[in-house]
Amino acid sequence: MGDNGDDALQPILIAGDWRAARKPEGDFRASNPTTGALIGQRFPISGADDIEAAIAAAVDASAALSTMDPELIATFLERYADGIEAAAEQLVAIAHSETALPAPTRLAGNELPRTTGQLRQAAAAVLSRAWTNPVVDTKAGLRSHLASLGKPVLVFGPNNFPFAFNAIAGSDFASAIAARNAVIAKAHPSHPATSQLLAQIAHQAARDARLPLASVQLLYDIPPTLGAKLCADRRLGAIGFTGSRKAGLALKAAADSAGIAMYAEMSSVNPVFLLDGALRERGDALADEVFGSCMLGSGQFCTNPGLLIVPHGTAGDAFVASLSEHFSAGSAATVFSAGVQRDADANLDVLRMAGANVLACASGGIGEGFRVAPTLLGIEASDFIDDSERLQIEVFGPVNLVIRADNLDQMIGVARALEGNLTGSIFTASDGSDDASWQAIGSVLRNKVGRLIQNRMPTGVAVSSAMQHGGPFPASSHSGFTSVGMPASIRRFATLQSYDQVSDARLPKELRDANPLGIQRCVDGEWTRNAIKRPPA
Amino acid sequence: MGDNGDDALQPILIAGDWRAARKPEGDFRASNPTTGALIGQRFPISGADDIEAAIAAAVDASAALSTMDPELIATFLERYADGIEAAAEQLVAIAHSETALPAPTRLAGNELPRTTGQLRQAAAAVLSRAWTNPVVDTKAGLRSHLASLGKPVLVFGPNNFPFAFNAIAGSDFASAIAARNAVIAKAHPSHPATSQLLAQIAHQAARDARLPLASVQLLYDIPPTLGAKLCADRRLGAIGFTGSRKAGLALKAAADSAGIAMYAEMSSVNPVFLLDGALRERGDALADEVFGSCMLGSGQFCTNPGLLIVPHGTAGDAFVASLSEHFSAGSAATVFSAGVQRDADANLDVLRMAGANVLACASGGIGEGFRVAPTLLGIEASDFIDDSERLQIEVFGPVNLVIRADNLDQMIGVARALEGNLTGSIFTASDGSDDASWQAIGSVLRNKVGRLIQNRMPTGVAVSSAMQHGGPFPASSHSGFTSVGMPASIRRFATLQSYDQVSDARLPKELRDANPLGIQRCVDGEWTRNAIKRPPA
Repeated sequence: MGDNGDDALQPILIAGDWRAARKPEGDFRASNPTTGALIGQRFPISGADDIEAAIAAAVDASAALSTMDPELIATFLERYADGIEAAAEQLVAIAHSETALPAPTRLAGNELPRTTGQLRQAAAAVLSRAWTNPVVDTKAGLRSHLASLGKPVLVFGPNNFPFAFNAIAGSDFASAIAARNAVIAKAHPSHPATSQLLAQIAHQAARDARLPLASVQLLYDIPPTLGAKLCADRRLGAIGFTGSRKAGLALKAAADSAGIAMYAEMSSVNPVFLLDGALRERGDALADEVFGSCMLGSGQFCTNPGLLIVPHGTAGDAFVASLSEHFSAGSAATVFSAGVQRDADANLDVLRMAGANVLACASGGIGEGFRVAPTLLGIEASDFIDDSERLQIEVFGPVNLVIRADNLDQMIGVARALEGNLTGSIFTASDGSDDASWQAIGSVLRNKVGRLIQNRMPTGVAVSSAMQHGGPFPASSHSGFTSVGMPASIRRFATLQSYDQVSDARLPKELRDANPLGIQRCVDGEWTRNAIKRPPA
Repeated sequence: MGDNGDDALQPILIAGDWRAARKPEGDFRASNPTTGALIGQRFPISGADDIEAAIAAAVDASAALSTMDPELIATFLERYADGIEAAAEQLVAIAHSETALPAPTRLAGNELPRTTGQLRQAAAAVLSRAWTNPVVDTKAGLRSHLASLGKPVLVFGPNNFPFAFNAIAGSDFASAIAARNAVIAKAHPSHPATSQLLAQIAHQAARDARLPLASVQLLYDIPPTLGAKLCADRRLGAIGFTGSRKAGLALKAAADSAGIAMYAEMSSVNPVFLLDGALRERGDALADEVFGSCMLGSGQFCTNPGLLIVPHGTAGDAFVASLSEHFSAGSAATVFSAGVQRDADANLDVLRMAGANVLACASGGIGEGFRVAPTLLGIEASDFIDDSERLQIEVFGPVNLVIRADNLDQMIGVARALEGNLTGSIFTASDGSDDASWQAIGSVLRNKVGRLIQNRMPTGVAVSSAMQHGGPFPASSHSGFTSVGMPASIRRFATLQSYDQVSDARLPKELRDANPLGIQRCVDGEWTRNAIKRPPA
């Protein structure tokens, strides 16, 4: 990658080929967040011609994929994971250059293995059919399961996980392909070369597995107006989105107008309640743990603990003092882009205008590149409750708000004032002294969040069958679904299909009497791998 | 019920009491469809005050319900079913007077038992927790299940099933309550006295089961503008709707704007493909069967077979001739309202203007009341494909369109031209001569419909665990869900909740190690009723 970029625009992956963009709307380059300098090649902002070509190819690929042997899909997912591992060094280097995320600890040590693990879990779910929820009612002669949409899935990737949520490699991608739908990936423009390399590996894996090559297509960027138009295209089966609330709601409105399900994960402030007993027991250790979580990825996590609810009193005061020291001792954190920096500054101002005080701010200059000073804000619980709409805006970056509560009622009041969130955490003492408070806060918080966490920070997101990475609106667009965790995340990109009185030989293998695949099925209300004995006709 | 109605408006069921409407926007009476005469009492069209009171009460009731012992919910559902059975004679008489549906065969013999069976299946699902999909990942320390929304569900009932889809007694109602949400029922104005009596029984059952009384509220009607405003009220958890596409899309747009999931079942023409072998084998019997299905409920079924795809040739010609005789010999069918009559006439005109010919029409006068003459229309497959958007509009009433195909390719072309539908049926020969055609048509039809049916008309809708009464948009608003069939229909009104590292005693019983309820759970990928042994900490 040169510093000035080659003259030619980088090719896009459309209809099985890497080819030049047709009538692009413009072009862009990535930036080095630590310096702000443009780096790497020039990438096209695709226009209507590229989008139309992608949709047309994806429609055909989806039709073919929807009836394809799932073994081939599993092979693709596994080959793709293998390919990512083989290119790990190069991927990490490129992603680091485009995002400034720590290469060894975060990208190589954590996110890349998570991404390949996710692809392999998707492959396992494809083989086990665990996502398909097969149901047989022998008395009624009905059988149902979740199946491919038969139509393409459009995936918008976010800036903050260049591998694990990449539009061409992350959970939405793996889920959509696992459900046998072609994917049109709209990468995030903050890491185009990372996305390009992933797409090259995906393309090769699709070739190796003999998938329709247009199952995997990549656009680096498109203008917002065309994005909205694309989301309203009825040829699409569904949409996956991870990003800002503003962009998410705009695209969702377009998708809604066309009756297309859009699974958007949009924003969350992830309240963390630190109860008095826990603070008395281990306040200093908690300050370390909280600070570490606040700073992960420079605060650019979907599950960043934006709100910290802390009781007044000796233990709470000591905790806040300790946490403030951490923030003061921190240094300016590198963020992904000038836009992230600008929005963080603007939202910090919103919080201050709403009455939040600066408790601590990393000293030292901001320096070059895209940086935000770690900042700890404070507000009284009563003030938060009075102006909760403004005071719970998400600041994407290392800015966190401490809410000081006089008593349990105020903590409950804060919980009641919350919008929908991905997570809610409660830290409690090991001696049982916080049990009543857990119960009182937890019962309110439970209905506000997708994942309720005990004694852990929210920034760890396991790819687990029991994960809920989603939550009540506006954290996500549908609280019944998760964007992380196989097999549940696959179900977003599926349709419920019932077979009524259909002869055994005409049923999909998954629903046949003999259960030739040996999968788990719910037969007359009971989960079993047993074959079905039909009553004589 | 007098012929002129009493002067006083009938009370509404709000916040646990039958009370007078406050500032109603107007009032209405039911009609006797066979004469067109107004019958029964005057019912209020509720205004903003009643709606606000209903929401406020439902919010509190939902919060209480969401943590209530499910046994009480099951008791309510069972008592309600018992109460309906005890009042069966009166319910059937009132519903017959308001809908003109046949009292013994349809209302008493079919729909009422279906309704009580549905309530009891919901009760069983509440007790078995079958709808909650409990998942445990012991390694990650995560557990998840589907849970109450913690917010009220608004249900709009349709005109065509006064019991089984009634907003206060039908599948949406039973599903929403089973998931421990309070229901605000917006009844259909074509059968207010039926809805009132059902609400009285529901109210008593709620009292007997000690549910929060505002769990069950009834509004007879509201103006469309207030309906849209209500659908955008963020205090709601979700919305169930069965009705016309026009009303459904308008309300869905409002719900979408507020991030509220609306499950709308809107329209379907339920294509029936009659293959040549089947027609040769049993064409006359099929004509009888098809005609019977077309006339069920005067054609006012969500699953009415609006499109009949028939090959040209001897067998197809004989079938169409036989079916035409049936239509010609029929008599004017009573429909629910003047509006249904008007819309059926208008949509029949649309079809004729789009090129459909009248093959047969019931002779004899239309007579008094709300009536539509059974009408069989015909069109060539090539013409249908050329103008498929207009030619697949739903005519709600006894109007059906025969599409004549020259060959298999044209039949496939018709399938390709279809929008999303609830059902698709294919009739095939028993001697295997249609097998290739089944395969070719079925593979296209499969992705267009929720339920694929072999050798049966679509009008039978079993309340089954493997039912899909839903389909790709615009048949329904989300093809991953069904509005009929326990436990799946309950899942529409649920949220996915995950517990991360939460101590056993703080978990809901359903997710505790010991499995004290003995329910089926998916533990580390395997469905089991076994208890969980936690690894030592």
